[in-house]
Amino acid sequence: MTAPYELIYYTGVPGRGEHVRLLLEEAGRPYQDTRTLSFGEARDAVVHWKDAGTHGNPKYFAPPLLKHGDLVLSQTPNILLYLGRQLGLAGPQENDAYRVNALALTVLDGLSNEAHDSHHPIALMLPYEEQKEESRRRSQYWIENRLPSHLEYWQKVLEGEKDNPGPWLLGGTFTYADLVLFQCLDGTTYAFPKAMEKFKASGNYDRVFKLWEDVKARPNIAAYLASDRRQKYQDWGIYRHYPENDLIGEPEQQGAL
Amino acid sequence: MTAPYELIYYTGVPGRGEHVRLLLEEAGRPYQDTRTLSFGEARDAVVHWKDAGTHGNPKYFAPPLLKHGDLVLSQTPNILLYLGRQLGLAGPQENDAYRVNALALTVLDGLSNEAHDSHHPIALMLPYEEQKEESRRRSQYWIENRLPSHLEYWQKVLEGEKDNPGPWLLGGTFTYADLVLFQCLDGTTYAFPKAMEKFKASGNYDRVFKLWEDVKARPNIAAYLASDRRQKYQDWGIYRHYPENDLIGEPEQQGAL
Repeated sequence: MTAPYELIYYTGVPGRGEHVRLLLEEAGRPYQDTRTLSFGEARDAVVHWKDAGTHGNPKYFAPPLLKHGDLVLSQTPNILLYLGRQLGLAGPQENDAYRVNALALTVLDGLSNEAHDSHHPIALMLPYEEQKEESRRRSQYWIENRLPSHLEYWQKVLEGEKDNPGPWLLGGTFTYADLVLFQCLDGTTYAFPKAMEKFKASGNYDRVFKLWEDVKARPNIAAYLASDRRQKYQDWGIYRHYPENDLIGEPEQQGAL
Repeated sequence: MTAPYELIYYTGVPGRGEHVRLLLEEAGRPYQDTRTLSFGEARDAVVHWKDAGTHGNPKYFAPPLLKHGDLVLSQTPNILLYLGRQLGLAGPQENDAYRVNALALTVLDGLSNEAHDSHHPIALMLPYEEQKEESRRRSQYWIENRLPSHLEYWQKVLEGEKDNPGPWLLGGTFTYADLVLFQCLDGTTYAFPKAMEKFKASGNYDRVFKLWEDVKARPNIAAYLASDRRQKYQDWGIYRHYPENDLIGEPEQQGAL
């Protein structure tokens, strides 16, 4: 298709739409982005596709959306799978796309969704201030137990590609899963800088932190990150920096581990 | 490939592995299933693929796994996408698979993951009893706000297929997304029978509850559900029936909506 790629998402935070941007930026492909609209216009563009009357049925439960010609895709990992194949970022063999998709799903579940839920453990509809205590409790366990188990998993994946050594999750082959891991590490570090600094200093996850640096240094990504197209983290997105949650030390109940 | 399909998952609960079974059962395809092993043997079969030493790198962060010849796939929606295409359950057009994948991801996020988190809002590693109060608070909001918004979304998707009317999420075309929605409705009803009865009685989600019945009545599915291959829900799986969480009525803070 020669139709343009159109990202439809809120403006003002990187959010889940950021993953879509990173693939298009890495590939050097032009795209339209509702980021350039005002906050209200971007919201209207998102809501437009939720309108069952206009479109037969709602095209999504939550944004981002990618429009490519007549195709309107929702769900971040689904959009990435489609774009990854289109842009040559899903591995050289046909079945590689399933491995890359599994890696992307695992990063998004483990670092993006779990980081989000650390500030909203009770209900999305409630403001943080009304679930602050639960959020602190959840963050403690997350940093002590779950976050390092994710970092350890990625370290093992990176170390395990012995037949095809290289800095990437698929060994010598760069794929969009590397971009997803970069973005989730980046967001988690914004939200939990002290905890991530401790994990970095431990030396146990050197391959993981190296991947983050290696992605940042890719020419198209470096140019993008330095541009005004890169949105800043804000304290209403997926990744929020609440210093009271950025805890290092033992969780409250020592026996629980 | 003529290799057998092998599902590798814990035994004793339907869990996420159940989605894989439903596709294979619907298609009438024979498959191997670690369900037939003892609890310890099934656990060992799962752990085997986490061993970086044996396999170059770990094949998953969490089960289920599907082995098909040399291919070992993880992540439930990823396995379903692969199988859906193999078994002719991902729609007639090539790009239908992206729509079906988006629908499956939305069901799994909204009904399976959110139902799970209702009994583990603070930490996976903590037993329910140590997060009981937070669980009750989360369940209240979930039932009052989030669960009906999911049901409403599925009702709208089903009503919206006006050009291709039929009982399924893709109108007249049955796909694996229908099996995923069936299973998630079934599990949610096990966990929250009073709440789901109230939603059913409201009449607002008649198409959703009809889909559940229509899937149950498909010959291969009906035979499967009546067999001993169908695992029973238990109170250590994704869907747990804690009567104290199956609440109908207003959440604690009336102003919050």
